[in-house]
Amino acid sequence: MYDRLKGFRDFYPPEMTARRQVIDILETTATQYGFREVGTPTLEQTQMYVDKSGEGIEEELYAFSDDGGRDVTLIPELTPTVARMVVDKQQALSKPIKWVSTRPFWRYEQVQQGRFREFYQTNVDIFGTADPIADAEILAFAADALRNLGLTASDFEFRVSHRDILSGLLASITNDDADIDTRAAIRAVDKRAKIEQAEYHGLLTDAGLSYDQAQSFDDLLTTADLDEIATVGNDIVTTAVQNLRSVLAAVDDLGVGEFCDISLTTARGLDYYTGVVFECFDATGEVSRSVFGGGRYDNLIESFGGQPTPAVGVAPGLAPLSLLCQRAGVWPTEELTTDYYILTVGDTRSVATRIARELRVNKNTVEIDIADRSFGAQMGYADSINAETVIIVGERDLENDEITIKDMNSGDQTTVPVEAFPGDHDAPTYEDVV
Amino acid sequence: MYDRLKGFRDFYPPEMTARRQVIDILETTATQYGFREVGTPTLEQTQMYVDKSGEGIEEELYAFSDDGGRDVTLIPELTPTVARMVVDKQQALSKPIKWVSTRPFWRYEQVQQGRFREFYQTNVDIFGTADPIADAEILAFAADALRNLGLTASDFEFRVSHRDILSGLLASITNDDADIDTRAAIRAVDKRAKIEQAEYHGLLTDAGLSYDQAQSFDDLLTTADLDEIATVGNDIVTTAVQNLRSVLAAVDDLGVGEFCDISLTTARGLDYYTGVVFECFDATGEVSRSVFGGGRYDNLIESFGGQPTPAVGVAPGLAPLSLLCQRAGVWPTEELTTDYYILTVGDTRSVATRIARELRVNKNTVEIDIADRSFGAQMGYADSINAETVIIVGERDLENDEITIKDMNSGDQTTVPVEAFPGDHDAPTYEDVV
Repeated sequence: MYDRLKGFRDFYPPEMTARRQVIDILETTATQYGFREVGTPTLEQTQMYVDKSGEGIEEELYAFSDDGGRDVTLIPELTPTVARMVVDKQQALSKPIKWVSTRPFWRYEQVQQGRFREFYQTNVDIFGTADPIADAEILAFAADALRNLGLTASDFEFRVSHRDILSGLLASITNDDADIDTRAAIRAVDKRAKIEQAEYHGLLTDAGLSYDQAQSFDDLLTTADLDEIATVGNDIVTTAVQNLRSVLAAVDDLGVGEFCDISLTTARGLDYYTGVVFECFDATGEVSRSVFGGGRYDNLIESFGGQPTPAVGVAPGLAPLSLLCQRAGVWPTEELTTDYYILTVGDTRSVATRIARELRVNKNTVEIDIADRSFGAQMGYADSINAETVIIVGERDLENDEITIKDMNSGDQTTVPVEAFPGDHDAPTYEDVV
Repeated sequence: MYDRLKGFRDFYPPEMTARRQVIDILETTATQYGFREVGTPTLEQTQMYVDKSGEGIEEELYAFSDDGGRDVTLIPELTPTVARMVVDKQQALSKPIKWVSTRPFWRYEQVQQGRFREFYQTNVDIFGTADPIADAEILAFAADALRNLGLTASDFEFRVSHRDILSGLLASITNDDADIDTRAAIRAVDKRAKIEQAEYHGLLTDAGLSYDQAQSFDDLLTTADLDEIATVGNDIVTTAVQNLRSVLAAVDDLGVGEFCDISLTTARGLDYYTGVVFECFDATGEVSRSVFGGGRYDNLIESFGGQPTPAVGVAPGLAPLSLLCQRAGVWPTEELTTDYYILTVGDTRSVATRIARELRVNKNTVEIDIADRSFGAQMGYADSINAETVIIVGERDLENDEITIKDMNSGDQTTVPVEAFPGDHDAPTYEDVV
């Protein structure tokens, strides 16, 4: 009668169980690194995105006027919101500020595989330190999170680059030609893998490079030899190479060096990045698009009216991450788990609810008949929710002060004295009572 | 530079920590009862609320047209969405369907204490059974959740009523006068405690009752004597009284009878309720408004084009719940917790990160210096994040292969051999190593 909106999704319990497990792993990993959860509003002033968002986002906003005439937008990304929050309390917050949050975002775009109009990301950011170990900690969090999901070095790789190497090389190669549109050239690099070579060179020449300059620039990016690049480049490049090396050394200390490769053709599309940037790719190439990315954005907080505050972050999205996990066979099983189903036969509810109550105290998932159904219907339901153990509380058994404990996996069952169950066990199974 | 929107909130980590604990308790309790998490979209078609929502909701919608010209709304409540989801998969879903979800909702209304334009609720619903034990399970879930939050019978009470008793009594008293507007009369009962008696009687007479009828009706509601009411009322009332008694008996079996009182002046405002309804109140009266409510809505799924599917649910809201918890002194402390801060002095990062890595494997929250700060600045930061233990990794100590373990509570500290730490301990403290 009513249809769900296109690009929006309903998550029924089996799928939601898997998604929740993945979100929990991302958030638990963030907690281990000392990232703290923040809660953020769904609506912000539209002007914030008009001013701050990169190319392509403004056209995709879910923007409207509220009943008070305010121009508001369903947030398309988290970074402007957390930047606003940092500026709002910059005196009170002790630095470094380390925040995590998982929430939905909205963009009105074409719906395709792994891309929806409502999509979930876990944003992890550090504010207030330019130290290379902060960049490394972001990379280490991301690598550990994927490792905790069951992915290995043969499943994924982080392609690590540096915005100042790209912009410094552009300046060196063009002899600081002021007519070069550095942002446009970097956006061209970001598109490099997705477009034809001729188009790529066209974008670079549009940005002001000569054909030869474009060729040398691309040669340097693809060699990815930091020694050579440090020799060719200006001071900006030398400093950036040193910074990138420090980040990679810290990444080694943090035990995730094996996941990180230098890849100067990685650029990230958003304009606000300033230093190290990286993207996560499927190491097998089967998932062809970037899974997620991150990087340093040292100027954004100041542009929001705050004190100069360096920042670095990463934002794994659940939809592309699920494609990678499914390809690697580590996406959690999409099915329910249930510790106990308590099956009642006849008027045995007082006893059955007493048992349910005692088992629930120990955090077990316990369902009981709440629809007055037949033995067979209850057994079918217990099976549908993957109950591990069924406790049959029948009138006849109770005449002998007994109940039946059935292991749903093996089908084995046994009777036990009703008063002794669950007894001292937190989560007694058939094996415990037989 | 950019302001947060009125009625929307930023949750910084200390407050978010407390909120997350409360949400976890609500959801863990729901899981123990076998409720399964669903994920739902933020936007739905506006028409759904125009057709289905009760008085007062339609004017408060955040409704707009998307770029494709669809009339869409930020969801103001969950019930229509889950009703749509049940109808969409009614053949595939095994019944009873037991769902839980915590998420934000939006209503453009006056901002006041405990009421915001963006607010969070945990919705818990059962579809597919009219059995009184289902109503009782909803009440038991709610009572257990509050108990798990640390609240007791002297903190809260559930005022339990029955829509069919109210409507049946109206029919009996007015001799089935077809001109009586039953819904309007029930809405009058819902407002009873919030308005003057004269206004209340005015609303009842507006609904078609004579002054004497209004008086008798109110007398019956306030006596709340089910025996007397069963005698006075028609068959609908008799059946409803029996149903209410069965629910209360099942509530006793589930161990939460002490929290439930019959209160026929409780009505719930929304039109779609059909059977048992209830509201949770602060037992001390200090929080004067209803904390949350719930009830049975057996006709809604059918009105969404589904097969007849009885339903019952409850939806605690986090904002009013926080008022009750704060009044009772059980709102979680709004501060961060940190297991370890690893303080580095000099060039000791390789060792420090090795220790951090090993401690993180055991799910400890571990922060390390990522801003190259002085000893004092690091100690101040460790204090600001409430670190329990600080591990000082200093160059001089390392010359003797030692590190220092400091208990931040007592200030006691001791040195230990660096290679022996953390050793076999999952979470070694000063007490473990001294």
